[in-house]
Amino acid sequence: MARLKLDISTSLDGFVAGPNATLENPLGVGGDLLHEWVVPLASWRAPHGLEGGETGADDELFAEYLAFQGAVIMGRKMFSGGAGPWADDPNAAAWWGDDPPFHVPVFVLTHHPREAEVKQGGTTFTFVTDGIESALEQARAAAGDKDVALAGGASVAQQYLKAGLLDEIQIHVANVLLGGGTHLFGTLGIDPSHVETTRVVASPSVTHIRFEVPRV
Amino acid sequence: MARLKLDISTSLDGFVAGPNATLENPLGVGGDLLHEWVVPLASWRAPHGLEGGETGADDELFAEYLAFQGAVIMGRKMFSGGAGPWADDPNAAAWWGDDPPFHVPVFVLTHHPREAEVKQGGTTFTFVTDGIESALEQARAAAGDKDVALAGGASVAQQYLKAGLLDEIQIHVANVLLGGGTHLFGTLGIDPSHVETTRVVASPSVTHIRFEVPRV
Repeated sequence: MARLKLDISTSLDGFVAGPNATLENPLGVGGDLLHEWVVPLASWRAPHGLEGGETGADDELFAEYLAFQGAVIMGRKMFSGGAGPWADDPNAAAWWGDDPPFHVPVFVLTHHPREAEVKQGGTTFTFVTDGIESALEQARAAAGDKDVALAGGASVAQQYLKAGLLDEIQIHVANVLLGGGTHLFGTLGIDPSHVETTRVVASPSVTHIRFEVPRV
Repeated sequence: MARLKLDISTSLDGFVAGPNATLENPLGVGGDLLHEWVVPLASWRAPHGLEGGETGADDELFAEYLAFQGAVIMGRKMFSGGAGPWADDPNAAAWWGDDPPFHVPVFVLTHHPREAEVKQGGTTFTFVTDGIESALEQARAAAGDKDVALAGGASVAQQYLKAGLLDEIQIHVANVLLGGGTHLFGTLGIDPSHVETTRVVASPSVTHIRFEVPRV
């Protein structure tokens, strides 16, 4: 069965987004620094329709991340930055235009029903209103023999972790201090536990730590 | 001039102590898990008067940490867990008995004057009431041609960082999820910035990420 995997970038001081996130700046102040390691990579540029880019350990790792994805799950906040009825959401069309970089079925968790959309390049957006288990079931069915990427944000990640549905996490510790912002699992209330680290890859700009999620 | 270096263990979700810290459990719920990587090491056991222990990459790294220390700075909270006048502090004698594991001069930041104490094995405790710069000046003088270790806790580390007096940080990311607790730089309000990572060492139980502190 397809595994559910979370990849998320964090600062050295443990923030997955900077303070004061807004619709214009959804990652908060300084939050874009967290992702500077990924944007120059050849494997990031290709699905965005861009040529060239950096190769090396980070690039291989990101290519692997894309290759395992048979489907993607994300929260409404990550999709549009908004909340509430879609008619009132100024970014209801999301961030990515007509040819989003996912190229697989994407399942968006929301409380507000909406028709599915077929985009160019293999990306579909399906809006799931009946909960995280339903979204996972649909994503697994769509993923075939590949795995499911949990794209975020932190709130959705916490819900899946707390429900015992998350199989693997890879944190990408960027060489950045943010000094404030959103924590990955800050309000979770899980019991403290050891995890099994399965791989660490380091480059000058980011340290990738992958681990199995304990069943709590 | 002696450099000021902070080494601190953190969980994968970015906590340097668990929730609900008390005098009996100063690291909070689950906080002891953060340090399980260090306690079995031969280089940790030796200064505690214990024989044997694990060798390998983590052990070499911890031996290096001890070897650079010509002096140590710590906060009152780390010294005794208490606050306020020493006469009212039930743990005023601190955690470590007559032969503390430091074996170098230790400078304790406090608002409450107290006579210096000479312990066995080379450890002295000097209580500094005139601020972090004075403590650093005294520690540097004591350190000779070695460096100064900032032992913690998080509040003291933030003060030194914010004052631009901290030279290097090494975070030890333990293979632990805590789900809540104290963040290293959670309330600092520094500007987001890149740092220069100078080394990453990984073992199955902990990933050590060392970086130069930017002058903010």
